[in-house]
Amino acid sequence: MWRSITCAGSLACVLAIIIGAGSLAATQPDPLPSWNDGAAKSAITAFVRAVTTEGSADYVRPAARIAVFDNDGTLWSEQPAYSQLFFAIDRVRQLAPQHPQWRTTEPFRAALDGDTHALAASGEKGLLQLILATHAGMTTGEFADVVRAWIATARHPTTGRPYTEMVYQPMLELLDYLRGNGFKTYIVSGGGIEFVRVFAEEVYGVPPEQVIGSSIKTAFEMRSTGPVIKRLPEIDFIDDKAGKPVAIDKFIGRRPIAAFGNSDGDLQMLQWTAAGDGARFMLIVHHTDADREWAYDRDSHVGRLDRALDEGEERGWTVVDMKRDWRVVYPP
Amino acid sequence: MWRSITCAGSLACVLAIIIGAGSLAATQPDPLPSWNDGAAKSAITAFVRAVTTEGSADYVRPAARIAVFDNDGTLWSEQPAYSQLFFAIDRVRQLAPQHPQWRTTEPFRAALDGDTHALAASGEKGLLQLILATHAGMTTGEFADVVRAWIATARHPTTGRPYTEMVYQPMLELLDYLRGNGFKTYIVSGGGIEFVRVFAEEVYGVPPEQVIGSSIKTAFEMRSTGPVIKRLPEIDFIDDKAGKPVAIDKFIGRRPIAAFGNSDGDLQMLQWTAAGDGARFMLIVHHTDADREWAYDRDSHVGRLDRALDEGEERGWTVVDMKRDWRVVYPP
Repeated sequence: MWRSITCAGSLACVLAIIIGAGSLAATQPDPLPSWNDGAAKSAITAFVRAVTTEGSADYVRPAARIAVFDNDGTLWSEQPAYSQLFFAIDRVRQLAPQHPQWRTTEPFRAALDGDTHALAASGEKGLLQLILATHAGMTTGEFADVVRAWIATARHPTTGRPYTEMVYQPMLELLDYLRGNGFKTYIVSGGGIEFVRVFAEEVYGVPPEQVIGSSIKTAFEMRSTGPVIKRLPEIDFIDDKAGKPVAIDKFIGRRPIAAFGNSDGDLQMLQWTAAGDGARFMLIVHHTDADREWAYDRDSHVGRLDRALDEGEERGWTVVDMKRDWRVVYPP
Repeated sequence: MWRSITCAGSLACVLAIIIGAGSLAATQPDPLPSWNDGAAKSAITAFVRAVTTEGSADYVRPAARIAVFDNDGTLWSEQPAYSQLFFAIDRVRQLAPQHPQWRTTEPFRAALDGDTHALAASGEKGLLQLILATHAGMTTGEFADVVRAWIATARHPTTGRPYTEMVYQPMLELLDYLRGNGFKTYIVSGGGIEFVRVFAEEVYGVPPEQVIGSSIKTAFEMRSTGPVIKRLPEIDFIDDKAGKPVAIDKFIGRRPIAAFGNSDGDLQMLQWTAAGDGARFMLIVHHTDADREWAYDRDSHVGRLDRALDEGEERGWTVVDMKRDWRVVYPP
């Protein structure tokens, strides 16, 4: 109001206000409205400004603007257990009529009875059995259909929301913000590559070819109805810990300039990203919000954050305090 | 001339000629000038028109316009032997002083003496030994440096040209033409993924993350100087024959709509592409030009084209007769 009064009668002045107002509001809306102002948000925007400003010492050409994101606990909730484990349990129930022996065989019995203690006690070996029994033995097309049907109907056990709504609104904004600045955003997940690909494009805007994950072996087979790719009951690659930089190198073939994780499983990916030349950005989501999400770190069985938290703080990586830094957690 | 005479005196008519001439020449230059007019060229342009015309029954949204290209024999010459074999032999010579036993051990002795008969006689096992001895035992960064230095200086044994000039001009135009129409172009090579990535961006305009190939295992290692990825002397994946659709599915996560190959090693990739829904394009480069390149097919030890030639002709895939269909072979 003050400006419009002082401006009365001058076309140039009115134009200046319109342009000025535009540069303050319309042309520069806050790209990260769900992030509270603070060190984390400032660090993100300062990094993006630095690598996208032509002529700046930190400028990075668009083709090299690779950003990698962990999925579980970084882009969506991973408590009380990984979503893919709930998928496997639901799948055991669905397939149980064809496997009567599962009623008396661990870890299937535990899965059928919802006996999470016995399930946890079955350890990595039990989990692997569960994954192979439920994720193999069909074609890749059939598996994608099964996941698609599950993700459309399944509900998170404590919130009752679809899993695809258990994603973090601030991270969705961050993905968009980076892509809007010429970044290619990748998901580098310990979860199954073909599991995550089913919903990554719709939920995160990340196309299948930019999803990297753990995998089981597959094989080409020519059938009378045409060729298929079969899913075999054998682990191919575990995309976790030291596997993450290995997979990044294999799938992308160049080092990211930004990496986003939340647990010790992401430490090597963060180290690998940090060790490159030029401007770098490493961020750890610290789960500190027991009211709106979950609070856990060093002692958690899911998404343990211990060594990476120490190293992140020591090396000045951006550690997001979810409670303090995020205005909202889930999409409204 | 006829048109300009009949048009004399009418501005609208002159404009129509200018616009008309523009649409024939300036606005639609031939995107494939190194291709002679004929069935192959027409099939390519008709396919691209069909999948890019909005509202057409064959329309494909840009994100799904995935095109996969074999490398050896499809994008560059593979005779008298794969370029990567010449790289391995040169590398054996370079490393020989550190391995005195190679002078008397096959297949290294054969490589050092340029004894191609003994080298061929050592078979797949010998070739594998050669590859592992020359492609492993360093970091990924060191390996890329070695390849970069080699490709910059090495010369093809019969033509004396740099290997990066032994690429096919018509295929370079085809890659550009597809990308100009919203396609994402991938290389799916039996050659080493980290070998091809070194020159694919500069030579083919294909970034590292769109190069798929055979690989050896690698491992992350934290050294006092920082993290590295080490190349291990163990095969990870052979990206040939039935391996090609498996790798396409793993790396890209969706089925291509166009595939380009030249040998039986590409057959399953072509079959996998052909078996998808909607418009499809499958092309085989048939080496028929002994004067300008090489002529070989069913009996060749390198790039044998036998089953794929029969299947391609039977199923109406586009079979390029290099001698007839290509105006030039190599870049001028």
